[in-house]
Amino acid sequence: MSGSSFTYERRVEFAETDMAGILHFANYFRYMEECEHAFFRSLGLRVHTAFEDGFRGFARGECSCRYERPLRYEDVALLHLRVTEKRAKSLRYAIRFELDGNVVARGDVTAIHVGASEGGTIRALPLPPEVDSLVVVAPEEGAQNAR
Amino acid sequence: MSGSSFTYERRVEFAETDMAGILHFANYFRYMEECEHAFFRSLGLRVHTAFEDGFRGFARGECSCRYERPLRYEDVALLHLRVTEKRAKSLRYAIRFELDGNVVARGDVTAIHVGASEGGTIRALPLPPEVDSLVVVAPEEGAQNAR
Amino acid sequence: MSGSSFTYERRVEFAETDMAGILHFANYFRYMEECEHAFFRSLGLRVHTAFEDGFRGFARGECSCRYERPLRYEDVALLHLRVTEKRAKSLRYAIRFELDGNVVARGDVTAIHVGASEGGTIRALPLPPEVDSLVVVAPEEGAQNAR
Amino acid sequence: MSGSSFTYERRVEFAETDMAGILHFANYFRYMEECEHAFFRSLGLRVHTAFEDGFRGFARGECSCRYERPLRYEDVALLHLRVTEKRAKSLRYAIRFELDGNVVARGDVTAIHVGASEGGTIRALPLPPEVDSLVVVAPEEGAQNAR
Repeated sequence: MSGSSFTYERRVEFAETDMAGILHFANYFRYMEECEHAFFRSLGLRVHTAFEDGFRGFARGECSCRYERPLRYEDVALLHLRVTEKRAKSLRYAIRFELDGNVVARGDVTAIHVGASEGGTIRALPLPPEVDSLVVVAPEEGAQNAR
Repeated sequence: MSGSSFTYERRVEFAETDMAGILHFANYFRYMEECEHAFFRSLGLRVHTAFEDGFRGFARGECSCRYERPLRYEDVALLHLRVTEKRAKSLRYAIRFELDGNVVARGDVTAIHVGASEGGTIRALPLPPEVDSLVVVAPEEGAQNAR
Repeated sequence: MSGSSFTYERRVEFAETDMAGILHFANYFRYMEECEHAFFRSLGLRVHTAFEDGFRGFARGECSCRYERPLRYEDVALLHLRVTEKRAKSLRYAIRFELDGNVVARGDVTAIHVGASEGGTIRALPLPPEVDSLVVVAPEEGAQNAR
Repeated sequence: MSGSSFTYERRVEFAETDMAGILHFANYFRYMEECEHAFFRSLGLRVHTAFEDGFRGFARGECSCRYERPLRYEDVALLHLRVTEKRAKSLRYAIRFELDGNVVARGDVTAIHVGASEGGTIRALPLPPEVDSLVVVAPEEGAQNAR
């Protein structure tokens, strides 16, 4: 039931392209977030929840993306997410974008578990126990291939 | 201090274009909302506010846009907003998009004052008193020109 | 092989919500476009194509949406598209958004077949022959239910 | 007439927030791009241009952002861009987001000059001569403060 990796399929929609005819670079970060959320759903988890005393969820601490080849309208990309780090209050993911078996981009995201009181400040919180038990660090990519 | 019309200047940004090389049609609705919010700010009003018992603001009841000519990257459009109707719980706007003196699009938006309880249902509410006193229906466009 | 209606399933993603906690109203137009494009793909058609002499596709002539109930994060909406009009150079769609069997919004879109020469003007063109033969006007909604 | 740094003011719009009540993290990358383009305009340059033989512009090679404090609806952020590297075919920027004098985020973007032939491949190209002469690497941030 626990998970350390996930694959998410995503078609590039017209509104996500720009006048250069390719997927706009900021949208890769939306795709990575969608992939993370689908990963959570696959484990029966929810990334964002509203409580009586406010809101809890995962905020971004840091993120990056390296672009190797463009994605275009109607391309169907595969996003391969791997959990690369688990700390007391945060998770880290590496996400590889592939098209037809070729890597087209590589992303990296740190997600911090946070709570926001109504109208108030946002502060880091320990991972929820169910996240801590179900989300597991993946073996290194090399190790995975070696099997 | 009251207002019935407003002009908002907006440059088309790269990320807002699509692979057809023009401003994506859904973004006109974002521009209209930005214009409405700037209109409210110009009157010292705020469209969206968080209260202890939840959230109040203006939701869309209905909206439409007719596209006449495209807008392109770095075009600076003028949005002319006019209040065309004021009812107990809603406002209605007509918004004319112009580029270099030519009408390029015409939009229409109905904004309903709503309140949302935390995690709860959204229901229509009477206009806030300050909105009711400061936002005024504009004279008809023909009448305006006739002056 | 021809088609007059289509159903498209769409999950509301986190980035598409706004601080009111619901799907931002402009995103309904993106969903409608995605639905139209999926409808075209289901018929083996492509909405947008690049030719040596420029670009051809479907631009919006007019569009509207009436919002009845909000959509929220992770809701899975069904969009029911029906072709309501076919003219020499344009198509018109009615799109009904449903959640758990309830109508949550109704949209209407006019799509004009256009050609854009490189860096040049956009002009309306007759429907491509394959679109004209495969896309068919749907029976009225009442008629459909009566069967 | 040459430039190595630029400041861009940006108000957070409603549609750019998410259900957590803050500016969605992917939108910081759009803001950075807007800032870059405004920087180019301030020098009389254009980031993207269509030529007879296709399209030329700056694609992203790599980008990242570190988030320190959230931005909220109607916040007016200042983006301070500095050119940190200039290579034969690329530029690199560091962008500091500030709100009320506090750093709220730090971004980093590598922009590669590319050309795309119609429907064809995208390849890196030497910086355009006017960009090469007008865009200059900024002194280090410490050095700047020391003055």
